Amino acid sequence: MATPRLYLDWNATSPLHPAAREAVLNALALFGNPNSVHSEGRAVRAAIEGARRQIATLTAADPAHVIFTSGATEAANMVLTPDFHMGRTPLAIDHLYYSAIEHPAVREGGRFLAEKTTEIPVTSSGVVDLAALERLLAGHDRAMGLPMVAIMLVNNETGIVQPVREAARIIKTYGGLLIVDAVQAAGRLKLDINELGADFLIVSSHKLGGPKGAGALVSRGEALMPRPLIRGGGQEKGHRSGTENSVAIIGFGAAAAAAIAEFDERNSRLERLRARLEDGMRRAAPGLLIYGADGPRVSNTSFFTLPGLKAETGQIAFDLEGVALSAGSACSSGKVGESHVLVAMGRDPKMGALRISLGFATTEEEIDRAVAAFATIAGRCRPAGEAA
Amino acid sequence: MATPRLYLDWNATSPLHPAAREAVLNALALFGNPNSVHSEGRAVRAAIEGARRQIATLTAADPAHVIFTSGATEAANMVLTPDFHMGRTPLAIDHLYYSAIEHPAVREGGRFLAEKTTEIPVTSSGVVDLAALERLLAGHDRAMGLPMVAIMLVNNETGIVQPVREAARIIKTYGGLLIVDAVQAAGRLKLDINELGADFLIVSSHKLGGPKGAGALVSRGEALMPRPLIRGGGQEKGHRSGTENSVAIIGFGAAAAAAIAEFDERNSRLERLRARLEDGMRRAAPGLLIYGADGPRVSNTSFFTLPGLKAETGQIAFDLEGVALSAGSACSSGKVGESHVLVAMGRDPKMGALRISLGFATTEEEIDRAVAAFATIAGRCRPAGEAA
Repeated sequence: MATPRLYLDWNATSPLHPAAREAVLNALALFGNPNSVHSEGRAVRAAIEGARRQIATLTAADPAHVIFTSGATEAANMVLTPDFHMGRTPLAIDHLYYSAIEHPAVREGGRFLAEKTTEIPVTSSGVVDLAALERLLAGHDRAMGLPMVAIMLVNNETGIVQPVREAARIIKTYGGLLIVDAVQAAGRLKLDINELGADFLIVSSHKLGGPKGAGALVSRGEALMPRPLIRGGGQEKGHRSGTENSVAIIGFGAAAAAAIAEFDERNSRLERLRARLEDGMRRAAPGLLIYGADGPRVSNTSFFTLPGLKAETGQIAFDLEGVALSAGSACSSGKVGESHVLVAMGRDPKMGALRISLGFATTEEEIDRAVAAFATIAGRCRPAGEAA
Repeated sequence: MATPRLYLDWNATSPLHPAAREAVLNALALFGNPNSVHSEGRAVRAAIEGARRQIATLTAADPAHVIFTSGATEAANMVLTPDFHMGRTPLAIDHLYYSAIEHPAVREGGRFLAEKTTEIPVTSSGVVDLAALERLLAGHDRAMGLPMVAIMLVNNETGIVQPVREAARIIKTYGGLLIVDAVQAAGRLKLDINELGADFLIVSSHKLGGPKGAGALVSRGEALMPRPLIRGGGQEKGHRSGTENSVAIIGFGAAAAAAIAEFDERNSRLERLRARLEDGMRRAAPGLLIYGADGPRVSNTSFFTLPGLKAETGQIAFDLEGVALSAGSACSSGKVGESHVLVAMGRDPKMGALRISLGFATTEEEIDRAVAAFATIAGRCRPAGEAA
């Protein structure tokens, strides 16, 4: 009899939360176009506006400041642009500074020219280097336009929490804009756009237990907004045209509401499960290197290198043992590249690292199976000294 | 007992086709990230590639030339750009010419500056004016870059089929690129990107019976491609980053397959139902003006003005009778603006026009109910001469 698969790759994408699934199934019955004025259209519109309030609650923002997009990547491309406007007045942003551990959706720089972007280094602990940020901003020529800074709240590979509040204070001193990718933070840290000091937050549905195909760009106000990326029928107050993906948006709202309702229980349980996982793995392989274990991490992520085991090989070995995890992040089709996060932390990326990430449905029994699989695989590895 | 609602606004959005619904429900179980290399990821990847083949069949294109987007509006914004490349060599497009009856997603001009766009007039029959197109292209300065022309295959308000093949011949003479919005044509006309002479086709899932949240940009080849609009993880061969909306894409593929399988039956039935509708309405109101009734129209659309009845008033009256239809197109939130299509046809847009659009589930009984509702509403109207 086949052993059931064990999914421990929740940072890549989350299975649908039961509440999101129920919302999706209900939403499938609402078939109107939310922009139609007839009853069928208005029913969908009302459900979308309900989801907007749920995302506003998730981020402690005003519902009027939530713009739905097709996902976080689109939201990043929308906000990372030199073309802003304050009301009807154009406002130039001159340069984008982003941390070296940002997601590719940010690292590609959106609509900035490559020569108008600069990486902010991170320390060997995987935390953005605030002194370096301050030096960069001190050297920024404001006569050319305001600086924009993008720092993620939680890194997708390590789970390490970034000092966004401290960065915000520095950025404000230099009159800059702060964009915070909160994709991996949502549901794992309490989000408050004002308290974080962010001008814009980016969140994603499918990392939170909602369906794929929805995300949001949340703004602190509505005076200062980027030039739309997708123009047409004028949906989302003109900020994002195109018929709204109502089913995904409604599921996104439900997933957010569930994440809020279950916040304390879910995170304390995952914290406990991760400790059990990491204790078990350390016992099986004392040489195991777990990144960020000494600093603030979100509850669900464990990023590690087992000396002697290449991450790519490890990932396949786990898959054969029935365990889905990842070697770094899941990006362009099946490509397992070097982890830019390890490189940014000054580590040798050759061996890579594996990521186990847990989610709302993860059980103690699954953790024990994962530890057993890990022990089997680790037992096959030669110690690092003997590696070819 | 409440009379069941009657949905006759299929051009705004289609209810899910049963085949698409089944595909969506199955796809909800495939929760992996299609870019993950483990089994869960590969299962989703395989389903997405199946959908890609279905969209390729719909457009008689190569599956390698189908790029999934979040919808037609995004696809339009992606392809309407001066920044193209031929392999790795940049290729400048200098100007966008679009027909005066294009959808707002095209009329907004994508990434072209407003001064780099020009409208191509249409005749009073609602058909793009080919002589005017030729004059515009003859005046185009190719030294500045190639011209791009966007002409929709079927207008969303009137259902009138546009002379795309003839336009393609003219455009080729001038070395231009042809972009064809085939959103309202898909499932209603046989699509063949080569036979149409289009360089790019745009299609949408939710107009075809698939879920909202998916569309595609289909290209004739892969040598000449636009600069990506959404960059990041490098999905869709780098042309469109962001985790694929697998559920919507899989539903889109199933809707396309159903549209192909049912093509002849569906269109001949709709043609018959529309004739019954228009005969019935004409009998109830001999002054009724139906646009495009003498030329090639798709099978499902009827666009008309009843003298003495403002479209906006008519739409509300129908909604109260339980009938969902639209006054022009469904775009930015509930806004009922003047129809740019009527203006382009040289009609006075003050009274507007109503659109009844049918779909795969429309029945004869529904048509008879629609005619009865029309007769009731028409009976209340004063003749045009007496209108205030």
